Order: sequence, then structure tokens, then C-alpha cells
Amino acid sequence: MSEEKSHQRQLPPTVALDNQYLHASESWFKYPVRVQPHHTDYAGVVWHGTYIAWMEEARIECMRSIGIEYTDLVALGCELPVVEMSIRYHQMLELGTAAVVKTRMVEVTGVRINLDYAIQSTDGQNLYVSAKVTLVAMDREKGKIMRQLPPRVKEVLAKTSALIK
Amino acid sequence: MSEEKSHQRQLPPTVALDNQYLHASESWFKYPVRVQPHHTDYAGVVWHGTYIAWMEEARIECMRSIGIEYTDLVALGCELPVVEMSIRYHQMLELGTAAVVKTRMVEVTGVRINLDYAIQSTDGQNLYVSAKVTLVAMDREKGKIMRQLPPRVKEVLAKTSALIK
Amino acid sequence: MSEEKSHQRQLPPTVALDNQYLHASESWFKYPVRVQPHHTDYAGVVWHGTYIAWMEEARIECMRSIGIEYTDLVALGCELPVVEMSIRYHQMLELGTAAVVKTRMVEVTGVRINLDYAIQSTDGQNLYVSAKVTLVAMDREKGKIMRQLPPRVKEVLAKTSALIK
Amino acid sequence: MSEEKSHQRQLPPTVALDNQYLHASESWFKYPVRVQPHHTDYAGVVWHGTYIAWMEEARIECMRSIGIEYTDLVALGCELPVVEMSIRYHQMLELGTAAVVKTRMVEVTGVRINLDYAIQSTDGQNLYVSAKVTLVAMDREKGKIMRQLPPRVKEVLAKTSALIK
Repeated sequence: MSEEKSHQRQLPPTVALDNQYLHASESWFKYPVRVQPHHTDYAGVVWHGTYIAWMEEARIECMRSIGIEYTDLVALGCELPVVEMSIRYHQMLELGTAAVVKTRMVEVTGVRINLDYAIQSTDGQNLYVSAKVTLVAMDREKGKIMRQLPPRVKEVLAKTSALIK
Repeated sequence: MSEEKSHQRQLPPTVALDNQYLHASESWFKYPVRVQPHHTDYAGVVWHGTYIAWMEEARIECMRSIGIEYTDLVALGCELPVVEMSIRYHQMLELGTAAVVKTRMVEVTGVRINLDYAIQSTDGQNLYVSAKVTLVAMDREKGKIMRQLPPRVKEVLAKTSALIK
Repeated sequence: MSEEKSHQRQLPPTVALDNQYLHASESWFKYPVRVQPHHTDYAGVVWHGTYIAWMEEARIECMRSIGIEYTDLVALGCELPVVEMSIRYHQMLELGTAAVVKTRMVEVTGVRINLDYAIQSTDGQNLYVSAKVTLVAMDREKGKIMRQLPPRVKEVLAKTSALIK
Repeated sequence: MSEEKSHQRQLPPTVALDNQYLHASESWFKYPVRVQPHHTDYAGVVWHGTYIAWMEEARIECMRSIGIEYTDLVALGCELPVVEMSIRYHQMLELGTAAVVKTRMVEVTGVRINLDYAIQSTDGQNLYVSAKVTLVAMDREKGKIMRQLPPRVKEVLAKTSALIK
């Protein structure tokens, strides 16, 4: 019932560009979530900042799935902070609803990693949020951008994709 | 001391475009913040999602300062959810540091309100975050975009600015 | 590696009473979690308020597991806000660590529901947090405590346990 | 208007013990807050975990007011994590409402610091939350409880109160 209602609470019509998120889901890493009370705000829907946390979780678990433990990177002195993020909110997500955070690395240029996100209903019929996030490899101690990705990360990315440019 | 260090932990060089945020501060609404432990993450700096909460607070207080109580809007059935947001993270902000969240409405088109943000050091010398946020007026009950802004909001915006188009 | 370290970062010795949490785990509902960056603070461990969110998630999923959808209760006008909570922090939990939030309803008196919590390592050898939470059934519209639990909740609790007094 | 309503949404009657919080407000440190959208949940009131963040902010600012900068302590290798916390939720706090987080150190025993909290309406007539929090001084590097408080902290506490036992 709450799912029905959430589909009707539409935000502005999504542009054609967003349709890409509703297809071509093969290559996405999928991270399931469910809307708990602490995710919502007074309007009864997910608070717009909550998605940032979900996208971080999906990103970390996506890396883990291809063999990169984020804590290992941190132990090596390499962090991957977000340096740019753009988000579009298409539909609202109500308390109790299950959804899927889909993410994929679309490009790695030097030490910059670009990811796409689509947060959808579990049946893939509804798009709640689409987003783009850019990470950059930083040397924690020096507080500076690294010159190149750690070898381990490069190696894994080269194996799992043709992303590195 | 922590302030000094935070200035050195620079993220990628900011483009010329961002310089606009370091000048022309006259027309900005300024909302002071201080980095508390719950704002930070394991890296000792503000977690990137925390800024979303600060920007919301600054927006609500900015509206209050020109005579629009957000709770009054909500009571009238009008909400202003975020429908688009883009953020650039320039420098990291460390535990205990004081900063200022600056915001201004740059354009109101129909029921869409565009705001700019610059999160800076208290002396205005450092830019931590710049962002653009788009709100849209929604009818809570119907779950639909409103056809026009509530008269009260229109009136206030017309008085305080030449923003409405 | 990070797991090892986390075991050494002990908070004050736990009293004998807490040993109950390390045994008798049969009747607990178990909710798995993993420490993501947004759960941590500057100290590199889980921020103490994060556990409140985890305990809420575990409680909602525990209810779902016995047939009570929280959103159904809310739709009926019944909410279960927390009215009392006490927490003891025994050991710190580091970034990347997997853990289990264990919960069980220990008593239902009228419209008050008491739950126990134990947040442990996945092997059950380490106790990070123990807590007690009291919920009370409230009528949302009236803003008042209900005189009795909704029949559906009573029925389910009666079936699954001998808790109701 | 929303203030009126919030006063009526009472949780269980508070026991006599809680009346202490409504008087004797002279010695409390007062930290003002206002309920923003991100503080609330689907029920339109402050989410119960939000108070943990407010109490942390009040504690840090209370220490600052007597000359202890928390970041200085951290730089010295001393942290003050919460090891115990108990909270009672008396009344709900609605979106837009202003309130005051009152705190005071009630006892310092060795390296343990006990604080009391009362979150009240700005006129002191309503008690939303009362809480007790225990901090303990930890050596960050060793991950162990310190044998004694840092001299600077002891000195300040001795000057500002007769708390140390």
C-alpha cells in the first residue's frame, strides 16, 4: 500500500536522459536498502541527505565485491573522498519501502573515479534518484591528491573493466 | 592549530568559476556552524553528507530571516523538497573548526527556486564547499507539483528581491 | 586486521551482569551490520549515536520477522516511540568491521514493550554495546498513549511468546 | 501553533524525580537548538536519536565555555567517549520548535565524568528529554582508559566546581 502511494508522489517529470537508468541494468552493482524511520523526515518520505549515506554504502560494498577492501586502502594511507556529486530526485520513497541502490564505475581518469547511481524500486520500474559522484585518491598523511592510484586498485580495476584511461 | 592544518588538506584545485564565491559576499545569508564530533568521519574531517544538513538549516533560517516560516508553509500544505543538487568539495573541514554556510536565492522560475551555497572559513579566505540546490513547491496532500508558489511566498520574494521571473 | 585492533580498544571492564549477553543467544533476533564511513567519527570508530539507528532497524526487522509490518501499524494510527533507553558502551567498533545487533522482547506490560539489545562481533566473542529500550503504543492523531495494544499486535505477541502480562 | 500542539503530544507522565529538571536551572549550561527537517522523522517530531547529537554539541560547547577546547584534548591524545547513557523521552518536539539543551557536570570520579541533561522549551515550562551521560578519559594511542584526567582538565574542573572526588 505504501509502495502504491509512493509511486504517485512524483517530483518533476524526468528528462529523457534519465531513461538510461531504467535500462542497461546488467552492469550495475546492486545494493538493497529498506526505508527505516531514521531515514525519513517530517514529510513521511526519505530525507534527501539519507541517499548520500546509501550511495556511500553501495560504493564501499561494490569495491569489496571486486576485491578492494576500503579499510585496506585506508591502512595504506589512501582515501577516496567525494570531490563532486550531483543528484536528481525523481520520486519520493516512503517509510517501509524496499529499494535498490545501483552503482557502476563509468570512468577512471588518473586518480579520479567517476560513478553513476540509480536508486530504483526492487522491480526496476521506478526511478527515485539518479546521481553522479567523483572520487579522488588522496594521501591521508600529506593531505594531498595522489599522483596515481595504488597498484592494487589499478590492477583490480584493469581486470574487472576497461575503465582506466 | 586545527584550523591551520585544515587549510593544507586541499582537494583538487578549484576552477576559476569558484572564485565568484570568494567575492560578492554582500548579498549572502550567513549561517554559522562549528564542526562537532558527530559531523566527522574516520578521516577526522566533516563527512561529505553532513553539509547537506547544514545547507538545509541555512536555507530554512534564510527563509525565516525574510519572513517565511517553513512550518507555516507546511501547515498550508506546501513543501519545498530538493529536486536537484550539485556539490563540489574544495577543502576539508576539521573537528572543532568554525565555518559559515552562505546561501542566496539566485532565481525563482514558476515554482522552482534555485539557491547557491558557499561554505567558507569565518574570515572568508577559504572555500570548503560550493553547491547549487533546486527546490520545487509541492502540494503535500496531492503529492504533486504546485502550479504556483503560495501568495505569501511570492509576495515576500517580490519584496526582498527581483528574483521572480 | 582492523578487527584485531578493535578488540584491544576496550572501554571499562564490563560487569558480571553483562555476561548474560554473551550466552543464551538462542532467542535473539539477529540483525547484521557493517561499519561504513558515515557510521564513524573522527576517532575512527562508530559514533555513539549510530547505534541508536542500528537498534531501530533491528527492532523494525524483528517485528517484521514475526508478522508485524511497522508501516501497517502507522497506517492504523499506532506508533511505537521510544520512551526510555539505556546504553552501555563496552568496546569500540572500527571502520569496516562486521557485527550483529541482537534484540529480543523481554516484557510487554499493557502498552509498554521492553527490549534488550546486545551488539556483538559476528563470532559472538565480543560485546560492543548492551542496551535496554522501552517502547509505548501511541495514538498518532490524539497524541496520547493508547489504552491497549492493537489487537493484531497482541495476537502476534501472544502467539510468539509468553511476554504479555 | 506548532508549539501548542507539541505540548499536547505527551508521552507517559513524568515521575516526581524529573521535576528537579524544571527547577534549579541556575547552574546549567544552556545550548539553544531549533528543530530542522533533518532532525525529524515520519511522525513529524524529532527522531529519538537526534537528541544524542544535540547533547554532544551541548557538552562540547559547555567545556569550551569553561576553557577546555575538545580538539586540544584530542591533540594531547585524550578523548572523552560516552560509556553510559540513559535517556527518558517525556514530550515530543515538533518541526520548527526552538528548545534549549541544558547540561551540567554533576560528578567527576577519577577519570569518569557524569553529566545531567534536560532538554526544555525556551520558557522552561516543558521538559522534552532528560538524560544522564557518563564519559571516561581514554588514551587514544593505547586504546586504554587513562589513569587520571589530563592536568589541564583537572585544573579547570577544580576551579569551576567542587566536582572532583
